[in-house]
Amino acid sequence: MRHPLLIPDLRELLHDGEVDAVRDFVSEYHPGRIAELIEDLETEDGESLFRVLDRRTRADVFTYLDHERQEQLIAAMLPRDAADMLHLMSHDDRADLVGRLEENVLDPVLPHLAQAERDDIRRLASYAPGTAAAAMTTDYVTLPPHITVRDALEQLRREAPDRETIYYCYVVDRDRKLIGFVSLKRLILSRRPALVEDVMQQDVIFARADQDQESAARQIDKYDLIAIPVIDAEDRLVGIITHDDAMDILRQEQTADMLAFGGVTSGAETKEETYWQGRIVTSVQRRIGWLLFLFVAGFLTKIVSEHFKDVRLKLPDLADFVPLMIGTGGNAGSQTVGTIIRALALGEVRPAEGLRVLARELLTGTLLGVMLGLIGFGYIWMLHGSWGFAAVIGLATLFICMWANTVGTAVPFLARRLGIDPAVVSAPLISTLVDATGLIIFYSIAILLLIKLGGH
Amino acid sequence: MRHPLLIPDLRELLHDGEVDAVRDFVSEYHPGRIAELIEDLETEDGESLFRVLDRRTRADVFTYLDHERQEQLIAAMLPRDAADMLHLMSHDDRADLVGRLEENVLDPVLPHLAQAERDDIRRLASYAPGTAAAAMTTDYVTLPPHITVRDALEQLRREAPDRETIYYCYVVDRDRKLIGFVSLKRLILSRRPALVEDVMQQDVIFARADQDQESAARQIDKYDLIAIPVIDAEDRLVGIITHDDAMDILRQEQTADMLAFGGVTSGAETKEETYWQGRIVTSVQRRIGWLLFLFVAGFLTKIVSEHFKDVRLKLPDLADFVPLMIGTGGNAGSQTVGTIIRALALGEVRPAEGLRVLARELLTGTLLGVMLGLIGFGYIWMLHGSWGFAAVIGLATLFICMWANTVGTAVPFLARRLGIDPAVVSAPLISTLVDATGLIIFYSIAILLLIKLGGH
Repeated sequence: MRHPLLIPDLRELLHDGEVDAVRDFVSEYHPGRIAELIEDLETEDGESLFRVLDRRTRADVFTYLDHERQEQLIAAMLPRDAADMLHLMSHDDRADLVGRLEENVLDPVLPHLAQAERDDIRRLASYAPGTAAAAMTTDYVTLPPHITVRDALEQLRREAPDRETIYYCYVVDRDRKLIGFVSLKRLILSRRPALVEDVMQQDVIFARADQDQESAARQIDKYDLIAIPVIDAEDRLVGIITHDDAMDILRQEQTADMLAFGGVTSGAETKEETYWQGRIVTSVQRRIGWLLFLFVAGFLTKIVSEHFKDVRLKLPDLADFVPLMIGTGGNAGSQTVGTIIRALALGEVRPAEGLRVLARELLTGTLLGVMLGLIGFGYIWMLHGSWGFAAVIGLATLFICMWANTVGTAVPFLARRLGIDPAVVSAPLISTLVDATGLIIFYSIAILLLIKLGGH
Repeated sequence: MRHPLLIPDLRELLHDGEVDAVRDFVSEYHPGRIAELIEDLETEDGESLFRVLDRRTRADVFTYLDHERQEQLIAAMLPRDAADMLHLMSHDDRADLVGRLEENVLDPVLPHLAQAERDDIRRLASYAPGTAAAAMTTDYVTLPPHITVRDALEQLRREAPDRETIYYCYVVDRDRKLIGFVSLKRLILSRRPALVEDVMQQDVIFARADQDQESAARQIDKYDLIAIPVIDAEDRLVGIITHDDAMDILRQEQTADMLAFGGVTSGAETKEETYWQGRIVTSVQRRIGWLLFLFVAGFLTKIVSEHFKDVRLKLPDLADFVPLMIGTGGNAGSQTVGTIIRALALGEVRPAEGLRVLARELLTGTLLGVMLGLIGFGYIWMLHGSWGFAAVIGLATLFICMWANTVGTAVPFLARRLGIDPAVVSAPLISTLVDATGLIIFYSIAILLLIKLGGH
């Protein structure tokens, strides 16, 4: 949704110093779109546009800018104005920003912030990355239980400008313990003299501060929430995670899972970086780890191959089938592990169900292996007229599929058992594991059928 | 968040016919949790629990039940009650449900619905699956531009019970053309005598009815929206997609992408089915397609291998390295294609940037290949003392990595160019494509260095 036609007009207005016209021009836009306009303009024009926005819009627009642009703008602002913007920003975005800024930019700004805000930033920055607490914001609405709906609505109206959302309100007692929840919709539908505690819902779906952020985001998804409250070990409300942040979390986790599955990263990374933002050196550094490990592990196939040198010298045509056999094992294993990792990530299968899943995947592998094996058998028989070779290919295909499905199921479950995220298990890892063992299966069947039973 | 301790209590209350106590018991729960309770109870107890819920709660809870349970319950209800529930359900869920029900269940129910509701169901069911229109709901709030904020709030209060969300309101003219948007937060903050058209935002972020549902969901994600309006070719508002449905869409698409990347499905499927819901036969049917295609394509490696029979007979030790070489190609290709598919899916790289991406990945592949190649060279040299073999492995590793990265980049871009979703490109497909060509690279380098140059 870029606006290439608007840019020249906007540039002209900015150059002519038509502040009011520019402000009018963008006043109708979503902050995310204004951010796009700023990014599409040259640096200086972008800064001018940003400067003419009113305080609140500026804070909203800022959140949608890329990190580089954010740092440029902050550095160019008066410390006082920068502090005012931090004051108006959503609390989680503010804490993230402060965490990213250089000290020389930050030091003049912080003294302009109220002590309470500095404490809030410090607190939000102190939570371990990847936890629900690290993903939460602190600008939410709390209500005491004993006020009326009328007073609650009045309070919401007063607080609305400074809150990330007013659609969900959390009811807390004097110790800030979370005792209920009421949506704005419910408040609007309730009789005005009723008490908040009478209209609130007591069974609140919440996340723990130290809970994994992905599982908190999945709760938002599962129960269709706009936000989820986060509570500490003493059941005190410490923040909320909003639906839009939950979406960001799930997108990042899924990117991490996809890259881990492709064998690019270890899956532990949650750093958000788009394709072009990453440097080539970083990309090489990420990828060399797994690639090197798998390369070294791949030397196992050489050892296996050497071990079966005799049979290969006797039957040199066998070697022609090696890539096909290990390729098929890799493909079946990759299918299985993709299915299992995703089912584990979504909680569709529980870690305790390993054996049931294994039985199911082994049966699937057997059925797949029988079909492919028959096709391989038929094809080789027709082409070469040798039933011995045909039988070796057919049987090896069957057993390799069964084995690949077993490995593709067992490894993610074992990882989970060892406390490792199953998402680190990649298609290349399973392929590499199945390569050497697939060779053993293939050569062993060849020895049995062609040499011991003389089928050649 | 299951409640194993509650189940026995609840069962007892149900068996004793304590309707009020049961209703009290669950009145504090989120509908999603009541649905879990129903699923944890035996069928009959679950039905009893469902029956005691009040009409509105029943319609809410119903949405969270699994499909099988939904169909059981509908079949057990009086047609009149079922119609009342359909009337209260969210419009998109209702249309989905009606689409799934058998005719013999549906036929007695439909006549109890108002004509307008039957039309709404029919209209929602008529949109092509996968489009924004097919994912939208029609129970949203519209406001005329010329009423006051006070009247708008009064209207919201009246309509709230029947609307999926009242937090976003859409302003339409007499022809239902979308002319603005106003959030409930903005209404609450506005002066009561102001007109809606004066407080509304005119630049509305929208989706087109025939737009891909994933791209509509990504707009919700990008601009942090609670809902996005969907308009038809004449700019008329026809529905909205809410944030929770957007999350579902993204989750399903990402599952589809992951399975497609693992080579399980073609990626076109968007049917939601959890691991245990799918039958083994279905799973085999899905998987055999790609597996068989890749198996047949894998015979290419046999043809290549036969072609190089002479060099293999002269240098039988070469065969020991074949699995390592093609494995490394598969791994590098899998890393690349995973990165590219994800970047394309998120719109981080545009289809037109193919050449820039190719240059970048080729450079990455070269750097990775140099590192792995040097390690392979050093290892073979130390182990075998043959510089010729060491050089073959080193150079083949380098060229195979470069080639694998090229294929892993080019294929998803080509797919996009051909109008195919790049997500159908799987790690196994790239591996298989690189296997045969990797063999050619390996054997060609071996012939050049060991036979022509006599390096052996």
